[in-house]
Amino acid sequence: MTAMSLTARPFHSSPTGAVACDDAPTSIATHVDAADAGRDGGIDLLLRLKHAGTRIVHVRHARVGTPDAPVVFVAGGISADRHATGWWHSQVGPGCAIDTRQVQVLAIDWLGSDGALDVPLDPADQADAIAALLDALGIDTLEAFVGCSYGAQVGLQFAARHGSRLRQLVAISGVHRAHPYASAWRALQRRAVALGALQCDDAHGLALARQLAVLSYRTPEEFDGRFGEAVVTDGRVRVDAEDYLDHCADRYVGRTPVTAFLRLSESIDLQAVDPERITVPTTVVAVADDRLVPVVQAYELVERLRGETRLHVLRSRYGHDAFLKEHAAIAALLEDALQGIGADSVCREVAA
Amino acid sequence: MTAMSLTARPFHSSPTGAVACDDAPTSIATHVDAADAGRDGGIDLLLRLKHAGTRIVHVRHARVGTPDAPVVFVAGGISADRHATGWWHSQVGPGCAIDTRQVQVLAIDWLGSDGALDVPLDPADQADAIAALLDALGIDTLEAFVGCSYGAQVGLQFAARHGSRLRQLVAISGVHRAHPYASAWRALQRRAVALGALQCDDAHGLALARQLAVLSYRTPEEFDGRFGEAVVTDGRVRVDAEDYLDHCADRYVGRTPVTAFLRLSESIDLQAVDPERITVPTTVVAVADDRLVPVVQAYELVERLRGETRLHVLRSRYGHDAFLKEHAAIAALLEDALQGIGADSVCREVAA
Repeated sequence: MTAMSLTARPFHSSPTGAVACDDAPTSIATHVDAADAGRDGGIDLLLRLKHAGTRIVHVRHARVGTPDAPVVFVAGGISADRHATGWWHSQVGPGCAIDTRQVQVLAIDWLGSDGALDVPLDPADQADAIAALLDALGIDTLEAFVGCSYGAQVGLQFAARHGSRLRQLVAISGVHRAHPYASAWRALQRRAVALGALQCDDAHGLALARQLAVLSYRTPEEFDGRFGEAVVTDGRVRVDAEDYLDHCADRYVGRTPVTAFLRLSESIDLQAVDPERITVPTTVVAVADDRLVPVVQAYELVERLRGETRLHVLRSRYGHDAFLKEHAAIAALLEDALQGIGADSVCREVAA
Repeated sequence: MTAMSLTARPFHSSPTGAVACDDAPTSIATHVDAADAGRDGGIDLLLRLKHAGTRIVHVRHARVGTPDAPVVFVAGGISADRHATGWWHSQVGPGCAIDTRQVQVLAIDWLGSDGALDVPLDPADQADAIAALLDALGIDTLEAFVGCSYGAQVGLQFAARHGSRLRQLVAISGVHRAHPYASAWRALQRRAVALGALQCDDAHGLALARQLAVLSYRTPEEFDGRFGEAVVTDGRVRVDAEDYLDHCADRYVGRTPVTAFLRLSESIDLQAVDPERITVPTTVVAVADDRLVPVVQAYELVERLRGETRLHVLRSRYGHDAFLKEHAAIAALLEDALQGIGADSVCREVAA
């Protein structure tokens, strides 16, 4: 990668010259490391974090798609990254539901995802970082924010805090508040990490935490179709899903800093958006079988949103992971929600 | 307690004189420690364990209620013990649904519950131990076996393996096979124990395991009504349910040997009964909100049982723990199922 400089942007300030309020992030873009002239890079932003004071944070971002086309921001779960064509290859790319021939897709690595920022991170902080990044990139308005899981939490924060910069929100399997049962489940995952850390065995603790998380992402129906009976081997009982859970942990542990897991897991539990603050048109997608985000929370969200609102409830044996697995159903919903975005530019190209 | 001797009973043997088959437990009662002449005591039994060969196992048992009245066997979850009037005080006692004025209630401490038997224990082993105990106590037939959770698994085993000694079974929140999703959940609890053991911190690992188990026993609905938002304290996020989960662990860890937890947790996962083998009249009670024993498993069980069968499906915010919390609903079901048991003896007393 080559480094390039962007013009540093001044602090936002209120009319009185005081530091901007909590809802308006202060930002300063100092540099971009980019292979593609700002399309994949990193920017230092001065942010007032909700629980950890004002800090310079480094935000890595990536853009793919047609330059100058409308911008769609895409955000996934806490383990997703800025490469949306990677973790969400089923939905983002040329000819996909989020069609990179027609739009620009912008995404970030979550604040905290490199493990360097060891403070409580609120989903509101992520939303403010995205707004500050838009300033730095000279993007006034997002045509859409499509968020899944934690990304949906952040999308709701963005809509509440920066609604004037957003034309529509699609929130999939993530809502306005953390559910106390799901929060308890995550707190125990963090305790598994703490138990590993006691013996300087971070990998072992993180592996167990990930396995517990995987259970929460899936459903009994999927496991019942997939796994068989327990067996006694070497004097111990081994259940059939253990090989799969080991595989899940192996894939995760090597690429995830423990601090990143802890702080982003915590962040989900800090979600608290007042839906009445959101007036942006919003599509809420819920999965009836989701064990982490009960569908009743989506009902509550939809009742309280103040803009034009659509609710879709899917059935899926993949539960919370449906956005990664139910390719056709999710694509149909996205195409419906996003229809028309970027179509004009394509039509113009055809006409030219 | 004083010790007393019982006549040692001969091994059961097949007509050919060979050791009895797997389905017929061999048993020898060597002694009873009893405060109450065999009503609360311990017996050594020679048992052929399904996965661990033939062993002498010590079974502690307790009887309460009217001597010589019909015997009802009562069995709870893996952390229940022989004192059914303790852990199930809402249902067992004078005037309760299982009325100790009209019946004798017999219960045991599970094989393995003292932590001394560190081998894989099948629910079939528990059923065989109960059958051998009945021999030792001179009890020919159980009027009913009322089992909850693991106790229901064992009751189904007893009905399948010793059906001629049982007039009816009531199986509450436990079925003929372990569900692969619930088994995965338990396997991760056992891994938490293993993680603690790595640093010689059994208590810490067992505490986490218990907290994970508690989540599986309860429901999101209960937690949502009971717990509020997460808070940031000392730079960490603490979710509202953590105090409760700490309390659950504190109550459990002091009284539970780690080996007992591991072996009884494993035992649940070894459950595999062919319902077609059961011809005893059976009442199956399932809870629609149970996250550990999905109600579809109860449907399957009922379809496959070969005797007279009744199914009751409850709704309860307490999920798997409904049998401990839904006092009135469970009492009504028990009274309905057990009506008539012991009534004759009471009528005779009144007439005498």
